[in-house]
Amino acid sequence: MSTEQTQDPLVIFTPSGKRGRFPVGTPVLTAARQLGVDLDSVCGGRGICSKCQITPSYGDFPKHGVTVEDGALSEWNKVEQRYDDKRGLKEGRRLGCQATVQGDIVIDVPPESQVHKQVVRKAASARVIEMDPATRLYYVEVQEPDMHEPTGDLERLKIALKEQWDLDQVTLPQSLLPRLQTVLRKGGWTITVALHKSHEGGEQQIIEMWPGLTEERIYGLAIDLGSTTIAAHLCDLRNGQVKASSGVMNPQIRFGEDLMSRVSYSMMNPGGDKEMTSAVRTAINGLTEAIATEAGIRPFQILETVFVCNPVMHHLLLGIDPVELGQAPFALATSQSLSLSARDLELNVMNENAQIYILPCIAGHVGADAAAVALSEEPNKSDDLALIVDVGTNAEILLGDKSGVLACSSPTGPAFEGAQISSGQRAAPGAIEAIRIDPVTKEPRFRVIGCEKWSDEDGFWDLTAQTGITGICGSGIIEAVAEMRIAGLVDPKGLIGSAEQTGTPRCEAEGRTNSYLIHDGTEDGGPRITVTQQDIREIQLAKSALYAGARLLMDKREVDKVDRILLAGAFGAHISALHAMVLGMIPDVPIDKVGSAGNAAGTGARIALCNIGARREVETLVRQITKIETAIEEKFQEHFVNANAIPHATDPFPELLTQVTLPEVDFNTGGDGGEGGGRRRRRRRG
Amino acid sequence: MSTEQTQDPLVIFTPSGKRGRFPVGTPVLTAARQLGVDLDSVCGGRGICSKCQITPSYGDFPKHGVTVEDGALSEWNKVEQRYDDKRGLKEGRRLGCQATVQGDIVIDVPPESQVHKQVVRKAASARVIEMDPATRLYYVEVQEPDMHEPTGDLERLKIALKEQWDLDQVTLPQSLLPRLQTVLRKGGWTITVALHKSHEGGEQQIIEMWPGLTEERIYGLAIDLGSTTIAAHLCDLRNGQVKASSGVMNPQIRFGEDLMSRVSYSMMNPGGDKEMTSAVRTAINGLTEAIATEAGIRPFQILETVFVCNPVMHHLLLGIDPVELGQAPFALATSQSLSLSARDLELNVMNENAQIYILPCIAGHVGADAAAVALSEEPNKSDDLALIVDVGTNAEILLGDKSGVLACSSPTGPAFEGAQISSGQRAAPGAIEAIRIDPVTKEPRFRVIGCEKWSDEDGFWDLTAQTGITGICGSGIIEAVAEMRIAGLVDPKGLIGSAEQTGTPRCEAEGRTNSYLIHDGTEDGGPRITVTQQDIREIQLAKSALYAGARLLMDKREVDKVDRILLAGAFGAHISALHAMVLGMIPDVPIDKVGSAGNAAGTGARIALCNIGARREVETLVRQITKIETAIEEKFQEHFVNANAIPHATDPFPELLTQVTLPEVDFNTGGDGGEGGGRRRRRRRG
Repeated sequence: MSTEQTQDPLVIFTPSGKRGRFPVGTPVLTAARQLGVDLDSVCGGRGICSKCQITPSYGDFPKHGVTVEDGALSEWNKVEQRYDDKRGLKEGRRLGCQATVQGDIVIDVPPESQVHKQVVRKAASARVIEMDPATRLYYVEVQEPDMHEPTGDLERLKIALKEQWDLDQVTLPQSLLPRLQTVLRKGGWTITVALHKSHEGGEQQIIEMWPGLTEERIYGLAIDLGSTTIAAHLCDLRNGQVKASSGVMNPQIRFGEDLMSRVSYSMMNPGGDKEMTSAVRTAINGLTEAIATEAGIRPFQILETVFVCNPVMHHLLLGIDPVELGQAPFALATSQSLSLSARDLELNVMNENAQIYILPCIAGHVGADAAAVALSEEPNKSDDLALIVDVGTNAEILLGDKSGVLACSSPTGPAFEGAQISSGQRAAPGAIEAIRIDPVTKEPRFRVIGCEKWSDEDGFWDLTAQTGITGICGSGIIEAVAEMRIAGLVDPKGLIGSAEQTGTPRCEAEGRTNSYLIHDGTEDGGPRITVTQQDIREIQLAKSALYAGARLLMDKREVDKVDRILLAGAFGAHISALHAMVLGMIPDVPIDKVGSAGNAAGTGARIALCNIGARREVETLVRQITKIETAIEEKFQEHFVNANAIPHATDPFPELLTQVTLPEVDFNTGGDGGEGGGRRRRRRRG
Repeated sequence: MSTEQTQDPLVIFTPSGKRGRFPVGTPVLTAARQLGVDLDSVCGGRGICSKCQITPSYGDFPKHGVTVEDGALSEWNKVEQRYDDKRGLKEGRRLGCQATVQGDIVIDVPPESQVHKQVVRKAASARVIEMDPATRLYYVEVQEPDMHEPTGDLERLKIALKEQWDLDQVTLPQSLLPRLQTVLRKGGWTITVALHKSHEGGEQQIIEMWPGLTEERIYGLAIDLGSTTIAAHLCDLRNGQVKASSGVMNPQIRFGEDLMSRVSYSMMNPGGDKEMTSAVRTAINGLTEAIATEAGIRPFQILETVFVCNPVMHHLLLGIDPVELGQAPFALATSQSLSLSARDLELNVMNENAQIYILPCIAGHVGADAAAVALSEEPNKSDDLALIVDVGTNAEILLGDKSGVLACSSPTGPAFEGAQISSGQRAAPGAIEAIRIDPVTKEPRFRVIGCEKWSDEDGFWDLTAQTGITGICGSGIIEAVAEMRIAGLVDPKGLIGSAEQTGTPRCEAEGRTNSYLIHDGTEDGGPRITVTQQDIREIQLAKSALYAGARLLMDKREVDKVDRILLAGAFGAHISALHAMVLGMIPDVPIDKVGSAGNAAGTGARIALCNIGARREVETLVRQITKIETAIEEKFQEHFVNANAIPHATDPFPELLTQVTLPEVDFNTGGDGGEGGGRRRRRRRG
């Protein structure tokens, strides 16, 4: 007998490459578990859940140094046969809990059989999401009650979870207790429970249960609760797949466009905070209903929700009067992450026991949304110095690399979202989202949402006949102002020239200032779309706040330039890097070093939803971030004032100037020039 | 210099006798803490709560081997002076946190300064309650927010609790979070929190909070939720004092008098369990309101409630359909103790964050009330073999000593509470509670609730004119039947003799049976109070069930007699031992070995309310108790049948016969004798 023959068969798993020898007759699932191979199972190896499907490979594997003979796995047994008859097993697949090792074997674990599947994300993104959700399903067989050994059904369920899944400290909320006996009996003493594990360890809570082995899928919501919009992703908690995405306007807008107006509303109106809390919770309930309908699921299948939001939204969601956030020292009621139940927040459309996780806030003005951006974009792991700007009604700004991260928020106001702009509108079909102005003729051409063509291309007018040209959205207004600057229609101070000064009748006098006509739709019953002097002022205020915040962090970090810039935010993803830089929204960097992180806050929420370890990670990260409070930094005011010019009064933009020429014009006619460069007010936070 | 002079002063505490040497200048509170002396403090040694008052003693103490000189404690300081001016310190008292050690000293800690005060209990009782409540007040000074080191107010509160009280893992429920910022600012960054510690360790939850050092007292409810009555004690959580006691009828009575009728109601009426749950919760809310009013406190000061109840009441309180408890194997939904929030049970009169503790159930028919009796009466610590019978609509029976405890429940029905008895009524003024029948004249004399005199004493009729003689309560009917047996009006089989057979016209024919007239109040517009043949049958069924349960436990324990008997239950306290034994309710023991434990279940609830360690104790005890299910024991039927006779068909009662003579009579006239001894039906459980 050779030595080889006396050895147990060698089992090699791919793609992990993990290998080990196991006695003949060992189930593949057992071998996988002992080697720490990621192979799923909900039923605990009873051949009923089919989550442990594997694909054996036969033949020569010189790479692994084995030859796999036919018969290296046991024959199909009755359980597999029954499963195949009933539901069908894919060609070449076996059930890992039934097939046993008979000889050397190479076993592939397909992605859908892995617990820690990786979620494929669209577009360029900093990180891959690995599935390790807080809520998972477990199937157990519970011992029947015995009159001679009286114990409660719950106690026997706990014993089953301990014995069959090694789960300790399991609790059942009071609201589920009344259903337990029925579910156990209906399932013939088998049950599937959805168990939520705290990321801090300790207790594990059952949040839903089904008789027998459930076919039900469980879902989670990742919600980015913004001042202006509430955006939600519905994710399958098994594989992280986004089943539906949806958004609604934040109904708190009727109490104030920006954060500080909402804080003021609360200060001026007793009970105003409660009105706003109630409004946002109602909206979230409506959104939950809508997204469930869109995905074709029942809302009670939503067992978890993760929120990211700025501190004012955070407090209002929690029912806390945000008044302290309106004045120094901007004290948060609580800054740590929160683990709550849906019931606590009156979120009564999703499962009543759904668990809520709210990311930690960084500081009084730097919220859980900024924490989510940090989690998603990982500046703390960056080799080069990254500036991450989450553009919204309030901008969250992060600057850092491996050696440390700084954060602040800056009150840009809603101009970047098309609000407080004369022809401004939300990003919706019919809104101008891109614009180019011919530097010679000063004529514009543009593109609207819902149509791929530019306005000077054939077919544009037919294609847009239905939506019409309705206004300018956030990215459109940024491009418009930047293009006007490039075309010499606006001077560095932000003054729009007259028809005379610019040589185009599109520059029209409006009282003592001028505006630029982009499109006159009045003949077709549409609006006249112009950029007014006031619009330019609003954009200047917004971009100055953004730039000043970034500069302040650079000062703290003692640098004059950054290596790369990431624009984030629902809208940040659509901003043209070149135009943002012409405007002076962001510091000067090589144009190819400006990237888009998409809705990084929303992505951060999804990461925290799908991976419990990410919750610990963001909590640690938040503690390590250096918080800068813009409101109390003298330097911020100075940066703000200097950033008013387009692109900037003092900072050179050498990289930008390799890309475009910015005409040296000055439309200050002396008389009311002060109205141009001089009128600089500090925007209220928000 | 002698050795003594170089030593630190000796500090001796009484009554503990703990002693140690401390450097000159050590505050007495510090010395007490280091020695583990039980000295209270809420403010943490800041001289504002006055809980740490001590009495220094001066002069020679040969017993302790010290002489205490004047000046052994520091002079009064400003803090003590201010406290004395403002609130007054008792003569000789000092504040332990302010007075410092200057020389050898003997210090007495008065009872009111001890945390673990002992609660004085009325009457004979098995154990003293030592105060160690789950909920206590803590005063802390919280650091103000700092813009440069942004953290949440909650996080700084947690740090203060850790630093000032060494309290870890503190949580704040979501419902309190909205108030936190206001309370902290109102208290000038000082706050008192009521903290609830889980008896299982781990998390500690803030359940109420006040600005600064609160004057507010906090209370707990101990509730004995019975099938017929709900009884509550309101206790001061600081010293265990019962501030008020109150009870209401369980409104579930309208769905069924006994437990099994309620289970049936639920089975027959969809949603019936929910009706009963709602009824009992509403009643508890009303009782909470009433008891708070009686004690002159506000209901939100009630921060804790402990429940004891039988399994059916337990399930209905929790909103669980009790249907499984109506049939073998009598499976409880949960048997372990439960820690909930008042909100979970819709108990919305007490503090919304009040913590609820429900004692564990022993088995499907042996509930948390039996567990409470075991906790209160401690059969597990008894040297002799004790039989404890908690008499109610369902009897809880415990038998045991140090070597082990057995438990069962037995369905006695409500006869012992005066229900299903023709002249029966609840114990209330006007009800006959004691009765004696002259063996010669067969004339009765009696006493009613609300009057100390017997009916044959002068003034009785004047004193009872207002209430009248309205009926017979539970203890009255037991005495009546026993006295009828002693007087030869009832034979051992339970048959009432005719006027002819007994020689008294008070024995009146009623159809084919006889009844005995106790009192004819018809002339005064009152009722005729009689004991009918059917009444005797009801009492026989009830007492047989009780005796059979006790006998069954004795069989299991393999004994023929017990050493002592404790009668417990709201009504058990009022039963005459002799009469109970004549009736054959309880086994034969020397009459002086029958004691009363009062409302032992209610006492058990109070113990668990006042002492967190008692919760762990009862949970351990319950696991160790051997559960006997009467419903499935053949022997129970046999015991039940034999126990029908008065006092018993087969068991001798030698101890009883040293006390009374039981006439050998037989009123069976042959014809319908079967109606007497033969009609034995198994009562439905309840």
